[in-house]
Amino acid sequence: MLRQVCRLSTRTKVQPSRLYLVSRAASTGKVLTVESMNPQIRNAEYAVRGALPIRAEALSKELQANKNKGFDRVVFCNIGNPQQLNQKPVTFFRQVASLVDNPDLLKPENRETLNKLYPSDAIERAELLLKHIGSVGAYSHSQGIPHIRENVAKALERRDGYPANPDHIYLTQGASSGVQNVLQLLTQNSNSGFMIPIPQYPLYSATLALIDAAPVPYYLKEEQDWGLSVADLKTSVEEARAKGVDVRALVIINPGNPTGQCLTEENMREVIDFCHKERLVLLADEVYQTNIYQPDQRPFHSFKKVLRSMGDKYQNVELFSFHSTSKGMIGECGRRGGYLECVNIDEKVLEQLYKVASISLCPNVHGQVMVDLMTNPPKEGDASYESYQKEVGTIYESLRRRATKLANCFNNLENMTCNDAQGAMYLFPRVRLPKKAIDAAKAANMSPDAFYALQMLEATGVCVIPGSGFGQEKDTWHFRSTFLPEEHLFDQFCSNIEKFHKSFMNEYRD
Amino acid sequence: MLRQVCRLSTRTKVQPSRLYLVSRAASTGKVLTVESMNPQIRNAEYAVRGALPIRAEALSKELQANKNKGFDRVVFCNIGNPQQLNQKPVTFFRQVASLVDNPDLLKPENRETLNKLYPSDAIERAELLLKHIGSVGAYSHSQGIPHIRENVAKALERRDGYPANPDHIYLTQGASSGVQNVLQLLTQNSNSGFMIPIPQYPLYSATLALIDAAPVPYYLKEEQDWGLSVADLKTSVEEARAKGVDVRALVIINPGNPTGQCLTEENMREVIDFCHKERLVLLADEVYQTNIYQPDQRPFHSFKKVLRSMGDKYQNVELFSFHSTSKGMIGECGRRGGYLECVNIDEKVLEQLYKVASISLCPNVHGQVMVDLMTNPPKEGDASYESYQKEVGTIYESLRRRATKLANCFNNLENMTCNDAQGAMYLFPRVRLPKKAIDAAKAANMSPDAFYALQMLEATGVCVIPGSGFGQEKDTWHFRSTFLPEEHLFDQFCSNIEKFHKSFMNEYRD
Repeated sequence: MLRQVCRLSTRTKVQPSRLYLVSRAASTGKVLTVESMNPQIRNAEYAVRGALPIRAEALSKELQANKNKGFDRVVFCNIGNPQQLNQKPVTFFRQVASLVDNPDLLKPENRETLNKLYPSDAIERAELLLKHIGSVGAYSHSQGIPHIRENVAKALERRDGYPANPDHIYLTQGASSGVQNVLQLLTQNSNSGFMIPIPQYPLYSATLALIDAAPVPYYLKEEQDWGLSVADLKTSVEEARAKGVDVRALVIINPGNPTGQCLTEENMREVIDFCHKERLVLLADEVYQTNIYQPDQRPFHSFKKVLRSMGDKYQNVELFSFHSTSKGMIGECGRRGGYLECVNIDEKVLEQLYKVASISLCPNVHGQVMVDLMTNPPKEGDASYESYQKEVGTIYESLRRRATKLANCFNNLENMTCNDAQGAMYLFPRVRLPKKAIDAAKAANMSPDAFYALQMLEATGVCVIPGSGFGQEKDTWHFRSTFLPEEHLFDQFCSNIEKFHKSFMNEYRD
Repeated sequence: MLRQVCRLSTRTKVQPSRLYLVSRAASTGKVLTVESMNPQIRNAEYAVRGALPIRAEALSKELQANKNKGFDRVVFCNIGNPQQLNQKPVTFFRQVASLVDNPDLLKPENRETLNKLYPSDAIERAELLLKHIGSVGAYSHSQGIPHIRENVAKALERRDGYPANPDHIYLTQGASSGVQNVLQLLTQNSNSGFMIPIPQYPLYSATLALIDAAPVPYYLKEEQDWGLSVADLKTSVEEARAKGVDVRALVIINPGNPTGQCLTEENMREVIDFCHKERLVLLADEVYQTNIYQPDQRPFHSFKKVLRSMGDKYQNVELFSFHSTSKGMIGECGRRGGYLECVNIDEKVLEQLYKVASISLCPNVHGQVMVDLMTNPPKEGDASYESYQKEVGTIYESLRRRATKLANCFNNLENMTCNDAQGAMYLFPRVRLPKKAIDAAKAANMSPDAFYALQMLEATGVCVIPGSGFGQEKDTWHFRSTFLPEEHLFDQFCSNIEKFHKSFMNEYRD
């Protein structure tokens, strides 16, 4: 999936006159074809919504017409999309969101009726937000509503114990658009290199393909709980630089996606030291910061906090950190809310980041409202505090149980091993496929892991993503599955996978 | 603002080893600087939220501290953002939006209370949408919720009298992201050329700069009501092709932005014929399709309808049409809702468009809901039909009156002429600046139109955008102003501009 570390740009220069002749020559048929379109788009791959999920959707439609598939429904474990699998949204958040949408409800003549439907703190929060926003139907400041950025900054100060500057916070449409803008900003030409983990969340490889920058992979160590070795980082950057790649940034996903590991503070210090020595900008994808399942052994530390704790020498390390309303216990993916914090970034570069944001006018205001709610949930003493705590706690405990249950399920299967999820929403088990299965995949013109995942989908309705969509060590095969199916369905879900796997192995065992 | 039609790419190839040495040499200071960043971002310009609006925001803050400016508040006429200037959102739309946000309200035990606050059709619509969406907090299909795309297709069929295919409709985050994706898709390399009108909405020039494609300008004729001449199009494409540019698409903004003209059907046929002959993909920016102020003389025709009416010969012309929930009488800009329809586009290319959309997961679901509401407002017999009609009619009539009033205001000023707005939300008056003003601008290192606009801002609090942000004939000076200030403030608004203009002319008259 990943292109070579050092390769020719897909966007090689062509003599203008020749190109013109070529394109004119094909004077019949479509002007816009897969051949004549943007080659970078053609080359990008994004497996999380690729061939497997497209087949899963088709299967879902087929099921409506014909129930005789051996399963009732397709279970979308291809994507961290909790509410698609019936996770209930947080009540307080939705109450505030509905009030800012319909301010007529807040009029004095409706107040008595309203008090029957809404707790006082939801009404107060909506009024406060509307005072600062005006209307959720207006374009906001391109960087995000100042009041909400101020609240994010305060939340970051509470989280880290270090100051945060609202002017250095950009609200974004989910974390994805923030990541895309920053990768684009950092790309000077097709020789600009970005260190990305393997396995990785394919937003990174896809975006680098789109903007024609060079991925510089470093490998996470499966046998060490998907840990990260600075010695490996060093080898990777040196090899790339020896080939002439202008390596300028390091992407870390912590907690990991698809791998679920949480970095230790010690390890993070080493990473920051490495960035300092190698003059790399650090991109910290921290969208799973509250999805922490071993809080005592592996708590979450933000890169900002660790950096700030490291003394003067490191205070110039440049850091972008990304967060989202789609993950955590919130799971408000459809809202496309998120933010990025810029630490030690040149003020003139920040102006350029504002300019890029302004071309798209503003992040959607509903997403911004959700960022406000995520970073400022009900506090002790608020009317909704207890119910909020209970809802979030219930989701958290259930996620933790499901993570363990699914890991146990995988580890009990023949030829399958799986690290625990220290964080995030995924497991990334390794399956040692028999030669016969690998040959059958080859015959079907598929990679072995895709072959395995497709068979699982057709047999069980469970949609996972083959490891090749994330990258993996050569000749190893994995898949990524969320552990988001509803808890009351979970035993059935595990048992379906188990049954399928046994039958697959029986068919293909060497 | 626009770069040369045919120029060197900003992304020229550098020898990898040299580049590496250069970047390493600067081993102190920031890694990411304006010099080392993406040059395409550096070169992009987007005046609608550029220097003038940034100054206007600062002025707005200053006003809070010190009222002695000679005006009470900053009036943001730089952007078509109706609700920022207190246009009331359409009640039915907000009612449905708030219910899909808070489905708890729809529970049987709340129904009696709910009926006091919501009309029956809002409740029914919310229930229907939730049945198809599940939760607005889940990622949807990357192309947009199938049910909503089906509704859009039906609305297009009603509008045009020709079939529309839901599979060829992509829901987008406002029209902007649709335009950006399509421009990117069409760009094979830095030699790929796009015909854009001058003056234009700077989303186009900015995006072409970002993706390093070649703008090929054609000029609208101010003296002919900002009309479009196919002879000019032909000259423009031929000149560009003679220079080796691979011109592959034509952008038309109809009704025009910033110019407000509406094309006649006859003119549109000529344009389609031109695209057919020259093998150009047509990009029709039709976001102002319901902002039509001379419906008898200049009704809106969609390019899709005109194309379909032209017989077999033209049925291969490739067309992308863009629409948005931000404009019309709706003005729900903050929601970032929109869609694009693909007509005659290669199916394999559509798959690629889906892939690009999937990398950003999905357009925000609230924006999608608004697309549903925009394309399917209350019908005759529905509980909200009459109030909906009345609200929308009131906004429309008021916009029409304000358009005329502002054009009259401009036309009564010394050295200023202004075409009527046949459509859209803007006027683009021409101001003939005295030499003394031009010299003063030069001394201030500003373009004369920016100099004029800044003086207007400082004197009146009215923020308009200089014509140079949109492009204009050499040595002519314009500005764009919306006519969105509230109607009860409109006489004062016009009189402030008038007073400023007189005093400006008194100071600089030759």
